[in-house]
Amino acid sequence: MRKHPVMIGKQHTTERLRERLAQIDAPHGRTRSVFTHVVEGAALAEAEASDARAACGSGLGALDGLIISIKDLFDVKGEVTLAGGLPAPEGKAAIEDAAVVSALRAEGAVILGKTNMTEFAFSGLGLNPHYGTPANALDPLRIPGGSSSGAAISVALDLADIAIGSDTGGSVRIPAALNGLVGFKPGQARISRKGVFPLSYTLDCVGFIAKDLPVIAAVYDALAVDEEEVLSAPSHIRCGVPRGFLFGDTDDHVSAAFEAALHDLQALGHAVGDVELDDLLHMPFRLQTKGTVIGAEAAYIHGDRMGEPSLFDPFVFSRLQKGQMLDAATYVGILQKRAELLPQLDAALSDLDVLILPTVPIVAPLLSELEDPAALDRSNALLLRNTSVFNFFDLPAISLPVRTGDPTRAVGCMIVGKRGADRLLLSIAAKFLTQTGCLAR
Amino acid sequence: MRKHPVMIGKQHTTERLRERLAQIDAPHGRTRSVFTHVVEGAALAEAEASDARAACGSGLGALDGLIISIKDLFDVKGEVTLAGGLPAPEGKAAIEDAAVVSALRAEGAVILGKTNMTEFAFSGLGLNPHYGTPANALDPLRIPGGSSSGAAISVALDLADIAIGSDTGGSVRIPAALNGLVGFKPGQARISRKGVFPLSYTLDCVGFIAKDLPVIAAVYDALAVDEEEVLSAPSHIRCGVPRGFLFGDTDDHVSAAFEAALHDLQALGHAVGDVELDDLLHMPFRLQTKGTVIGAEAAYIHGDRMGEPSLFDPFVFSRLQKGQMLDAATYVGILQKRAELLPQLDAALSDLDVLILPTVPIVAPLLSELEDPAALDRSNALLLRNTSVFNFFDLPAISLPVRTGDPTRAVGCMIVGKRGADRLLLSIAAKFLTQTGCLAR
Repeated sequence: MRKHPVMIGKQHTTERLRERLAQIDAPHGRTRSVFTHVVEGAALAEAEASDARAACGSGLGALDGLIISIKDLFDVKGEVTLAGGLPAPEGKAAIEDAAVVSALRAEGAVILGKTNMTEFAFSGLGLNPHYGTPANALDPLRIPGGSSSGAAISVALDLADIAIGSDTGGSVRIPAALNGLVGFKPGQARISRKGVFPLSYTLDCVGFIAKDLPVIAAVYDALAVDEEEVLSAPSHIRCGVPRGFLFGDTDDHVSAAFEAALHDLQALGHAVGDVELDDLLHMPFRLQTKGTVIGAEAAYIHGDRMGEPSLFDPFVFSRLQKGQMLDAATYVGILQKRAELLPQLDAALSDLDVLILPTVPIVAPLLSELEDPAALDRSNALLLRNTSVFNFFDLPAISLPVRTGDPTRAVGCMIVGKRGADRLLLSIAAKFLTQTGCLAR
Repeated sequence: MRKHPVMIGKQHTTERLRERLAQIDAPHGRTRSVFTHVVEGAALAEAEASDARAACGSGLGALDGLIISIKDLFDVKGEVTLAGGLPAPEGKAAIEDAAVVSALRAEGAVILGKTNMTEFAFSGLGLNPHYGTPANALDPLRIPGGSSSGAAISVALDLADIAIGSDTGGSVRIPAALNGLVGFKPGQARISRKGVFPLSYTLDCVGFIAKDLPVIAAVYDALAVDEEEVLSAPSHIRCGVPRGFLFGDTDDHVSAAFEAALHDLQALGHAVGDVELDDLLHMPFRLQTKGTVIGAEAAYIHGDRMGEPSLFDPFVFSRLQKGQMLDAATYVGILQKRAELLPQLDAALSDLDVLILPTVPIVAPLLSELEDPAALDRSNALLLRNTSVFNFFDLPAISLPVRTGDPTRAVGCMIVGKRGADRLLLSIAAKFLTQTGCLAR
């Protein structure tokens, strides 16, 4: 029997897949709106091939037989890439797999289907008026978080062993946090973006959501370019807590769970101390008051369709309109200043191993709360606030679930690694999870 | 006696330098407004050191003792970099040399001084209201061309053996063409831009102006990164003439000289034929009707000062104001489409060795013609038209002087090489010059 990091028990891949397909097909189930398309036939063929390899002892390695969901902005050969929006009139089926998808297939992974998402990945809430909004896995009255909404729920409901998503401002880490999962955004250059429908050329990253770390580490190892030396985590980890504006508006539930987690880490002998970084961490917001890099780039990408507002999610459309207002000189300035700020933050982190802060400052809002447009804006801004900072600074970051008093309201703790130390961050995160035993599953 | 490619006769460097300094100091001479600052003391010390090395046979190589002028947008340690504008209130002397300057010094070159230029390098005419406009070396009633105006004239008047300039839309090739000189713009990534005051982050290139090719080749070899295999030019060179809109508005003098040069090349056995490339070559203009990449980037760079229009050359200021009007989404789109167009042009050139076209379609306008603002705009646009296309496509390009019936009105022929084939372009240009014997000097 072949082994891979997530293989639980000795069930055949085909059998596991059939159970999942049955769950997805169940009428009125919790799996509603999780997938935009399930590639049932192809997945079954891949699962059978994996079982055949296993039967003759020729398994392909760690990912062979892993069941994987793909956010619907990665090209999957033969499928129209919707990116959460209505199909474009000229929309054609992808003629080849995205680089990530083809690499996963080459490793023997089973591609289950394409997951629902915020339209064009342009909000952190996970609502989608075209394909429905998947329910939060812990409380169906709450939002799933996004933009990789279906990705997170596909994992939370055990439909996929791991979900491939994208994270431009928090789109992997936010739904991971709100559903009690692990969500990892590596450094941008680590994973190929070939065949990924863009939200922002400057800030898009590929990322991963799973219930546990080993499967994320295995998939990351299979896909990452520019390999780094694999360092094991030091025994005493220097953790900086950037208290300041990123801790504002944190609700009591999140705050209590986060502080308890910090307390656990300290009790385990790690060095946990506050660090003053507000001047630097505020810069992404100060530089982008007139408009954002993401908004401007998305406004170009969707510009041709913007003459027909009815094609869009109104909330996404309003954000695209703001993007259209930014002038090029300011945009150029943001990118120039960003290039100067990155090494400044690196220098400020020189005496630390990681930063730790809440992934999102609030629990998943109730769907009913968001009927008020002002609440929609405010919630979206709060959800994206902490995560987006580390897209701007392009540091690897992972959201880990922490223990809470209420299992229906998950809380994520974000561990931010240093530039280029993605694999070390995974080791540190694994140590924290093992030592505290606080993993959701 | 040491040898270097431009050393004419056996005169000591110090002696040569003193003669040049005397020329520059001559009152009411043609050297007026060529330099913004001559670093006399440092240059003499460098010349004496070079002579001392020569005397003991320890010369540093091809560039030892070469007298070089530096466009006043390269940092020279101890000097304020003016870039053709008024010194900023916070303007401080550069604390280190630009990468190009320090590399030249390390090779034993003598840095003579900093040359005048269009304010902020943002026009092709070479006029400067702050520091005066150098006269065209062939006809003092005509413009020098720019933006590297002083650079070209420093070479034309034999003050410098070679001038280091920059070329964002033609700033090296235009004044070279209008003064009967050789002007070379390599591919952008070939020469470090560290310590060069920017006009456009996207399009700025370092370039060279000299009377002959060997000195340009020697300096290029000393400064270029990412060395290419040095290929010698094939015996029969396939030359494409992109007849179409880049040949519109060409004046009779330029046209006659250019066609005669083509005829010479054909008579020498080279394959000269028309190529239809208008669809691709038009794209830089079609994409930038709302505003240009250069305008937007320059508007950011000078944005802080634009509240005080009186600080600027009014013509440059009006161009910066246009740059402020471009929206970020359009800017993003220009850069995205540019990335797609580059390989398309490469493919279209696959059966050719070079393109050949007039560097500028007109002779140097008379200064008196440009008192009319409409003529100013029109002349500037015509001067930049042909050259700027190959900044957009980032191909190496060189302007060579061709024979004309009137030595006071120089004509340049632009040879455009293929991507990455900068050194091959220099070999082809050298072959053309040798075979046709049409060099100005």
